[in-house]
Amino acid sequence: MEETPKGSRLHIAIFGRRNAGKSSLINALTSQDIALVSDVPGTTTDPVYKAMEILPIGPVMIIDTAGIDDVGDLGALRVERTMQVLNKTDLAVMVIEPEQGVTEFEKELVKAIRKRNLPIAGVINKSDLLSISPEQLAQWSVEIDVPLIGISAKTGQGIEELKRLMIKLAPDDWEGPPLIGDLVSPGDTVVLVVPIDLAAPKGRLILPQVQTIRDILDNDACAVVVKERELKEALAGLKQPPHLVVTDSQEFMKVGADTPPGVMLTSFSILLARHKGDLETLVTGAKAIDSLEPGDKVLIAEGCTHHRQADDIGKMKIPRWLRQNVGGELEFEWVSGGTFPPDLTKYKLIVHCGGCMLNRREMLYRLATAREAGVPIVNYGLLIAHLHGILHRALAPFPLAQMILTE
Amino acid sequence: MEETPKGSRLHIAIFGRRNAGKSSLINALTSQDIALVSDVPGTTTDPVYKAMEILPIGPVMIIDTAGIDDVGDLGALRVERTMQVLNKTDLAVMVIEPEQGVTEFEKELVKAIRKRNLPIAGVINKSDLLSISPEQLAQWSVEIDVPLIGISAKTGQGIEELKRLMIKLAPDDWEGPPLIGDLVSPGDTVVLVVPIDLAAPKGRLILPQVQTIRDILDNDACAVVVKERELKEALAGLKQPPHLVVTDSQEFMKVGADTPPGVMLTSFSILLARHKGDLETLVTGAKAIDSLEPGDKVLIAEGCTHHRQADDIGKMKIPRWLRQNVGGELEFEWVSGGTFPPDLTKYKLIVHCGGCMLNRREMLYRLATAREAGVPIVNYGLLIAHLHGILHRALAPFPLAQMILTE
Repeated sequence: MEETPKGSRLHIAIFGRRNAGKSSLINALTSQDIALVSDVPGTTTDPVYKAMEILPIGPVMIIDTAGIDDVGDLGALRVERTMQVLNKTDLAVMVIEPEQGVTEFEKELVKAIRKRNLPIAGVINKSDLLSISPEQLAQWSVEIDVPLIGISAKTGQGIEELKRLMIKLAPDDWEGPPLIGDLVSPGDTVVLVVPIDLAAPKGRLILPQVQTIRDILDNDACAVVVKERELKEALAGLKQPPHLVVTDSQEFMKVGADTPPGVMLTSFSILLARHKGDLETLVTGAKAIDSLEPGDKVLIAEGCTHHRQADDIGKMKIPRWLRQNVGGELEFEWVSGGTFPPDLTKYKLIVHCGGCMLNRREMLYRLATAREAGVPIVNYGLLIAHLHGILHRALAPFPLAQMILTE
Repeated sequence: MEETPKGSRLHIAIFGRRNAGKSSLINALTSQDIALVSDVPGTTTDPVYKAMEILPIGPVMIIDTAGIDDVGDLGALRVERTMQVLNKTDLAVMVIEPEQGVTEFEKELVKAIRKRNLPIAGVINKSDLLSISPEQLAQWSVEIDVPLIGISAKTGQGIEELKRLMIKLAPDDWEGPPLIGDLVSPGDTVVLVVPIDLAAPKGRLILPQVQTIRDILDNDACAVVVKERELKEALAGLKQPPHLVVTDSQEFMKVGADTPPGVMLTSFSILLARHKGDLETLVTGAKAIDSLEPGDKVLIAEGCTHHRQADDIGKMKIPRWLRQNVGGELEFEWVSGGTFPPDLTKYKLIVHCGGCMLNRREMLYRLATAREAGVPIVNYGLLIAHLHGILHRALAPFPLAQMILTE
């Protein structure tokens, strides 16, 4: 329960042939100073996600690709699975079998990883069994243009060096812009409006709300948390107006009315859109809502499979609002969980959830896929704000995005 | 991630012989309107915990005792495992094999369950295969004094009736007193002091903090969340003093100094102690700290296994504070996770964590075990407050507990 959210973990994918020593490498990292937090087993051929703490890197998600390494040559299915893993990988670690060395398998893999602009660390495991000369190591390293380190998972030799390399290679921007931290100054008060409806899980708050509170505290500011019905009273109880009000998108209308005009107002969805992805792309998508015409195909995509309520936002509310807006029928398709259709060209608009269960890398991949297909993409929160006519106000903390909306 | 905390789920244990139809019963409940949230596999013979939503009961934890049903007669190990499950069970469901009917196994089980004062619902599965006459059902029901329902997991017959029985039998008080809800009125402001130290997981808040915010919102009040360093400023920014300040125990001293004398102050630990267990027993335990003498044995018990920091509270800080207080050496032993020693008589004091990962039933069981052994038990938060001399003030919201402290 004390777990760091999945999306806040550096995603490290471990690739290599079956006998290259992937598992022993993961164990070596583990037995040193990693706490294994959880283990989400997939099917036998699916990658396994292991939430861990690697000191001093911090909380990571190790993607153990055990299932995509052990069939002869690179079959079509295996390539697809590798690509799916790469869509959410921040840093690739390739374990090379010392006897076979660099083969076509490694070369193809490096090509696929480089195509995604991902950093790669190369590892030769089992140095205790088979010593590789520095010259051989250097030759392989040059051959695939990947830094290579000889380690022994058994004796621990080279593990610290590998960690240093991983830290060096990890992209600086993998976490994206802060959720809210750069919008507040020490001593600021931020009011968070958290409606408690039927969809709210019993006894807790949803992740983006908790993350926002945490980011406010991390930045020496104060969070006032309140339901929409108590907002007016809470604002009246403050000596100074707050610096910012953040609301759940579904309460935009009421909160917009109750927040004094001089106070900046935005939504958790907009904060998350910037933190996880690319606010500008999504604002462009929001504008495209008004170009929809009856009969158009719309894809509604959710990053997780959750228990649906009677009037589910993705299944019911958004289709209803869009139909009302377009003044006619629209054709909806839905995807949820890990799948995102590779061919998007038949859609006129993609409406994506906030993606609290996706990491930034995967969200960026989805946005890029939509852009490449020339299909506008918007998220739930921006769509709601736009349809309620308050997106402009809600973008006040983000002048560039606001400009895109009005241009 | 949208999960209800484990401790806020009604714990339903399913007992029965291997072929009685336990799994198909669970599946029948599932396929109707249960969303399977997670599945925590144990070893082959350990019970499996399944977090689910059974409508209209709500979020539950099904304890599937598959592992403790399949060996001949009740062996010692099996009895122990059954008892461990019963220590956290709120409601027992016993599935009876229709061909064999009520045997010694069922009778022993009922005896063990009744000894714990737990409600039992009896189920005869496979009604589609083997029809049991109403007379036979009634006879078995009388023989073991348990209400019995014939169901067919396959056709769904009887499932709704079983759910109604489960709701009827579920104890009203399984959730215990509210965390904070009964201490606040609509419109109140409650200030929560949440320190962010090295032990705080990245990107989130710990569960009791989130649960407290949620309970405040559920009761139409407003939560002001702030670090200890910004508390003074936050209080100064409110037009009226808050109704209550709740702090992390580790910041009691600073927060006590910064909170005006007229404002009620307590801690998350004290709130949790009442919600999860029995505040009075723990206050009695706090008083016993002053009777410790050099050489005494102290048990430190934690409900979960977490990643330990350098100056871990259970491993380092509490032993240090207690040694300072007693002015000499003490002998410490530690337990963590699901185990709690059945024999406690050798200890002079038990210091337990807040138990955020335990359900109320298990916490009450641990407190009762300590009381029966005549060993005082205190939790981390009360111990800290007592050693800092501010327990009396921190108990102001709870007059009965405060009286126990001063008597």
